[in-house]
Amino acid sequence: MNNQKENHYIVIMAGGVGTRFWPASRESRPKQFLDILGVGQSLIQTTFDRASKIVPFQNIMVATNEKYKDLVLEHLPKINETNILLEPSRNNTAPCIAYAALKIKSKGNDSVFAVLPSDHVILKEALFVEKMHEAFAFAEQNEALVTLGISPTRPDTGYGYIELDGAAKEGINKVNQFKEKPDLKTAETYVNSGNYLWNAGIFIWSVNSVLSGMTKNANQIIETLSQDLDKLNTPEEQEYINQVYPLTDNISVDYALMENSNNIYTIPADIAWSDLGTWNSLHAYMDKDDAENVIQGTVLLAEECSNSLIRIADDQKAVIKGLKDMIVVLDDGVLVIYPKDKEQEIKQVRNNIKDSRIL
Amino acid sequence: MNNQKENHYIVIMAGGVGTRFWPASRESRPKQFLDILGVGQSLIQTTFDRASKIVPFQNIMVATNEKYKDLVLEHLPKINETNILLEPSRNNTAPCIAYAALKIKSKGNDSVFAVLPSDHVILKEALFVEKMHEAFAFAEQNEALVTLGISPTRPDTGYGYIELDGAAKEGINKVNQFKEKPDLKTAETYVNSGNYLWNAGIFIWSVNSVLSGMTKNANQIIETLSQDLDKLNTPEEQEYINQVYPLTDNISVDYALMENSNNIYTIPADIAWSDLGTWNSLHAYMDKDDAENVIQGTVLLAEECSNSLIRIADDQKAVIKGLKDMIVVLDDGVLVIYPKDKEQEIKQVRNNIKDSRIL
Repeated sequence: MNNQKENHYIVIMAGGVGTRFWPASRESRPKQFLDILGVGQSLIQTTFDRASKIVPFQNIMVATNEKYKDLVLEHLPKINETNILLEPSRNNTAPCIAYAALKIKSKGNDSVFAVLPSDHVILKEALFVEKMHEAFAFAEQNEALVTLGISPTRPDTGYGYIELDGAAKEGINKVNQFKEKPDLKTAETYVNSGNYLWNAGIFIWSVNSVLSGMTKNANQIIETLSQDLDKLNTPEEQEYINQVYPLTDNISVDYALMENSNNIYTIPADIAWSDLGTWNSLHAYMDKDDAENVIQGTVLLAEECSNSLIRIADDQKAVIKGLKDMIVVLDDGVLVIYPKDKEQEIKQVRNNIKDSRIL
Repeated sequence: MNNQKENHYIVIMAGGVGTRFWPASRESRPKQFLDILGVGQSLIQTTFDRASKIVPFQNIMVATNEKYKDLVLEHLPKINETNILLEPSRNNTAPCIAYAALKIKSKGNDSVFAVLPSDHVILKEALFVEKMHEAFAFAEQNEALVTLGISPTRPDTGYGYIELDGAAKEGINKVNQFKEKPDLKTAETYVNSGNYLWNAGIFIWSVNSVLSGMTKNANQIIETLSQDLDKLNTPEEQEYINQVYPLTDNISVDYALMENSNNIYTIPADIAWSDLGTWNSLHAYMDKDDAENVIQGTVLLAEECSNSLIRIADDQKAVIKGLKDMIVVLDDGVLVIYPKDKEQEIKQVRNNIKDSRIL
């Protein structure tokens, strides 16, 4: 607690739905509000607890869609209600981060904040806290856009990559450029070269650095949100945001800022991280039984099953025999049984469903 | 309707649970109360409708366990409440049939009644009605225990067989003996010989014939139930039955009567019958899609599935890909996924479950 500073903030990004975790995730109950790991805590609760080890809990903000306000309050009873940034529209990450930066700046000019996804997992928490403090310290003293980089353990095509000039070294590394999700061949080149890290979507910067970068590269967003900055941190904030926020460009912070900046730094942080993007990544991440199964929920019998992910909602029970390489998810009136190696299709199947009650 | 007679009765046997249809069947909602065929009617409703084409509906009785009284009234709103025979204990079929016979006899000495299982299916209804009228006519005029016999289409080891002296001929055939469920080799011999029919558990006899046979072969049951016959068809009937019924021998009508009688006759009746004993027999009975699947309920997607039975309860939806030779049943909080060729294990799995809420 001793090195927590009053001018350090964390903004937890919690606006997504995580459709690839359907049918567990729903429009009305996105992935970050689920206990995906089966640990008795939702992902956002774990993220909040982790954040509170880095900054004072009064300085933890959550940015989310306005319709998830009640869910945030339910999952994070300790949060200051004025620390919930409610997006009236889904405009991707750049407007959201700009809004957070302007709001934090209006509290103090020398603030530094980190952006954390709400729905990832990090196993090595102490190391993560240590690396975040390093990042905060560097961002405080430099006009730098800092990110944590994860050493790739496989040529994953689902992640963005961070390219360095040479092999990653401990501590601060200058970033050459950000690379979008590559194809498999490219990903293999990246991993073999040793010059690439995974982009975990964790950013640390001073409000001045990020606003300066955005003013340069995404000025429409800054201008749109800056029409009446005096409204921020007042009872009129929400009404103001409801007016201006939907007018901002819909663009990610990676496109709007990171790909156009040359003051990007990364700190390698092998914190046992996963973005838990898909059922397969959950399967890969979790401890498995002798037959490589991950089983969540009350499965009364699981015989002759192998390399499968079985997730049964709390109010349901299952008896399963003879499944190989399958995903089985039963949640809130929807059963999905799907081959593990075709799980990327589930998102499309979901998108084709017309019945909004099960989305 | 014209050949329906006032002294003809039908007793529908509805006391079983049908545990092999778990998790669709439950202690609290046995198989006969389910719409197993997905036709919008429970099996007992279909059976009642079929019976009402043979005898006046006022003469249709239902024998069941006392705990299913409300279910019977719910499924058969037309039934006369005094026509529901409530068994206070599960003593198998012989005591139940004896009770029905004594109750019907107390209404009139010249009555004839048929016993029908409540949970079977018959596709050729008109032929069934015709054969039943034949059986009623013969049973009325002879001291005969009559049964309908089904020409076997395969060497099924799940059915009892009726042995004739020679090849089955149209109309009344004298039965040599009843045979219990055979092993496969024996079943093959039966089917190849042409002298055997399946026992569908459909019996037709006069009250005098069946009571005379039972007095000879299962007198304990008749004596126990006959202590105070004046109570039958009075407001005191149930209290009386509650006292004496549990004291009767627990034995099936096949053992108690049919195997010891020499006045048994059968009418071959190729009525497209199935006892729907198991999920596999349901699969065999139902129309299948091009890939040999039977799908009941809202399955939004069933891709690359073959030779499978998928049954999803009304309040649930499913997306399924890549299942071969499997049974999938989702009903009331329980999901079962099981290889089709191992379905006989499901009953044992069910018996091992300690949580009575899902049985």
